[in-house]
Amino acid sequence: MDRDQHYMAMALQMARETIGQTSPNPSVAAVVVKENQVAGIGVHVKAGEPHAEVHAIQMAGDKAAGAEIFVTLEPCSHYGRTPPCAKAIIDAGIERVVIATTDPNPKVAGRGIDMMEEAGIEVKVNVLKKEADQINLSFFHYINTSEPYVRLKSAMSLDGKIATSTGESQWITGEKARLDGHQYRHKSDAILVGVNTVLTDNPKLTTRIQGGGINPVRIILDTHLRTPPSAQLVQNSEAQTWIFTGRTVSPEQREHFSGFPHVSIIPLEAEEIKVEELLRYLGEQEITSLLIEGGGTIADAFVRAGRVNEMISYIAPKLIGGKNALTPVSGEGIPHLKNVQSLTIQSHEQLGQDIKIVSVKEG
Amino acid sequence: MDRDQHYMAMALQMARETIGQTSPNPSVAAVVVKENQVAGIGVHVKAGEPHAEVHAIQMAGDKAAGAEIFVTLEPCSHYGRTPPCAKAIIDAGIERVVIATTDPNPKVAGRGIDMMEEAGIEVKVNVLKKEADQINLSFFHYINTSEPYVRLKSAMSLDGKIATSTGESQWITGEKARLDGHQYRHKSDAILVGVNTVLTDNPKLTTRIQGGGINPVRIILDTHLRTPPSAQLVQNSEAQTWIFTGRTVSPEQREHFSGFPHVSIIPLEAEEIKVEELLRYLGEQEITSLLIEGGGTIADAFVRAGRVNEMISYIAPKLIGGKNALTPVSGEGIPHLKNVQSLTIQSHEQLGQDIKIVSVKEG
Repeated sequence: MDRDQHYMAMALQMARETIGQTSPNPSVAAVVVKENQVAGIGVHVKAGEPHAEVHAIQMAGDKAAGAEIFVTLEPCSHYGRTPPCAKAIIDAGIERVVIATTDPNPKVAGRGIDMMEEAGIEVKVNVLKKEADQINLSFFHYINTSEPYVRLKSAMSLDGKIATSTGESQWITGEKARLDGHQYRHKSDAILVGVNTVLTDNPKLTTRIQGGGINPVRIILDTHLRTPPSAQLVQNSEAQTWIFTGRTVSPEQREHFSGFPHVSIIPLEAEEIKVEELLRYLGEQEITSLLIEGGGTIADAFVRAGRVNEMISYIAPKLIGGKNALTPVSGEGIPHLKNVQSLTIQSHEQLGQDIKIVSVKEG
Repeated sequence: MDRDQHYMAMALQMARETIGQTSPNPSVAAVVVKENQVAGIGVHVKAGEPHAEVHAIQMAGDKAAGAEIFVTLEPCSHYGRTPPCAKAIIDAGIERVVIATTDPNPKVAGRGIDMMEEAGIEVKVNVLKKEADQINLSFFHYINTSEPYVRLKSAMSLDGKIATSTGESQWITGEKARLDGHQYRHKSDAILVGVNTVLTDNPKLTTRIQGGGINPVRIILDTHLRTPPSAQLVQNSEAQTWIFTGRTVSPEQREHFSGFPHVSIIPLEAEEIKVEELLRYLGEQEITSLLIEGGGTIADAFVRAGRVNEMISYIAPKLIGGKNALTPVSGEGIPHLKNVQSLTIQSHEQLGQDIKIVSVKEG
């Protein structure tokens, strides 16, 4: 690891810690270095607040003049909620900028770099690019497609069962795996289940990780609005609940939920809920990442639509058996192997007694 | 790694290379060391041929007197197909014996050690014991239970499917995983499928690994003898084929197979084939290890009987979906989670694009 990589690795580590809290913005960190000493550090904490570069330059104060800055994502060049960071870097008298990865928006990629180079600053790019892209996978996907990045999570046995033939599912995997799963709620803007999961498990879908964690918007796919007002997702107001329905739901049915301001009933245009229409709508609401947690039929709809970007599998070393036992993805399925998409294994590790496998759709 | 471990590791490496070829005997290797130089090495090549210690002592010749011997399994103390190795060690004038693990048969464990100690030889045991036990897992199980060690192998998608809803299964996993699977045929005395696998896939079930490989005895569970004489398992004579049937099969049905000397039709006592009766019979035939390759219903019978000692899972990063798509273990299954046994993960690794997980039943 050379010197540039060393400081970039430091910045990447800080950026990684803010995953989940900056949506719809990316997670970014910056380090200002003057004469081989750290002069300032900064992260982007929350959308609407200053960018990482601004914090780091502010901390460096007078030392920013003539210094270098290491930043995990190309500094922005446009006036958005805050003034452009490229301008802040130029104004501070920074002499060298090292960037891990360029702006994901192809329309503006390179503009921040151009601005700084025109001001006589030395710019180096693609230092630890792969690690940096990893941090903002969902943001990059959102910028490029205007749809949320979709994660599918399942906990199953070695023979692919998420429950026994009698429906018992608590618990197939161990505590470590279950706790690990909660980080994906924290990292996701929204979490989605089908109405059958609501009726069967009555989940709360809040984030339980050490030290708190952000609750995602809770989404129920419920064509005929069968969610009972007594459901935890309605009664519990720790997070918003969005219930997507088909066109045929009546005002009388919706009336039952009027006393719950955190609950929204959202009819979609199609008779049945369509994955494509749903994702487009969620993108418009600045939902950049979506976690699918419940229901094999729901999972199947996303699989068949080719809309699963990442699969998180917790596998318990157990054999349950049963022709009728549920599996993670049911529904119609994909009939022919030639149409089945291969994901790429990103990691595999043992968590307590279980194995966790993360696979991603490339490109 | 100290000096004793160093020489033992060398012996274990040699023993590991003979897994699959020594049944019903264990895989054993020995190294004779005189004045810190290797004087002789030996492995047990095949049942009925000399044991590892005898080969190593023979190679050492005169140097065996006053030497040490490192052996991966306690030298035998009884007159079997060959004279006891403990006696050969004493007769050769060996002064020190280092043993990885003791005899798995509790009735004779320690007797070889006693014989040698009584002859004034220094004996050290349990050097790299865990590694040594690993090599002879199936042999130890067979000695302790008189039943074969049962391995279940499956290749599935990340959502637990071994085929699409239309029955397509070739191929879910990649070439590396499929090749890896063949080593378990080489390592197993017998391979078992249900008659439905014969009717659907018409497999040959021979071992295809680099440089050849041993073909296991091919077993078909076929209560009503529906295997057609045209099946590859009947027509191909590269290995024996044992067809287990229920009681009701007639002599006329069996007559169809009389022209194939490598095919045996074996009626079991129970009307339906029972896992327990089958394993007892196979143990009597000196089948020390059994690989189950085909049929979710067959796998389920072994799972419900608690007779799966090792599960080998190849998992492709694919999502297939389908309520009716086949899974590795189907049948009735185990209805309640409290009755589901936990295996222990022994290893997980990436093979090409896929993940391989090996889990074992402890004890």
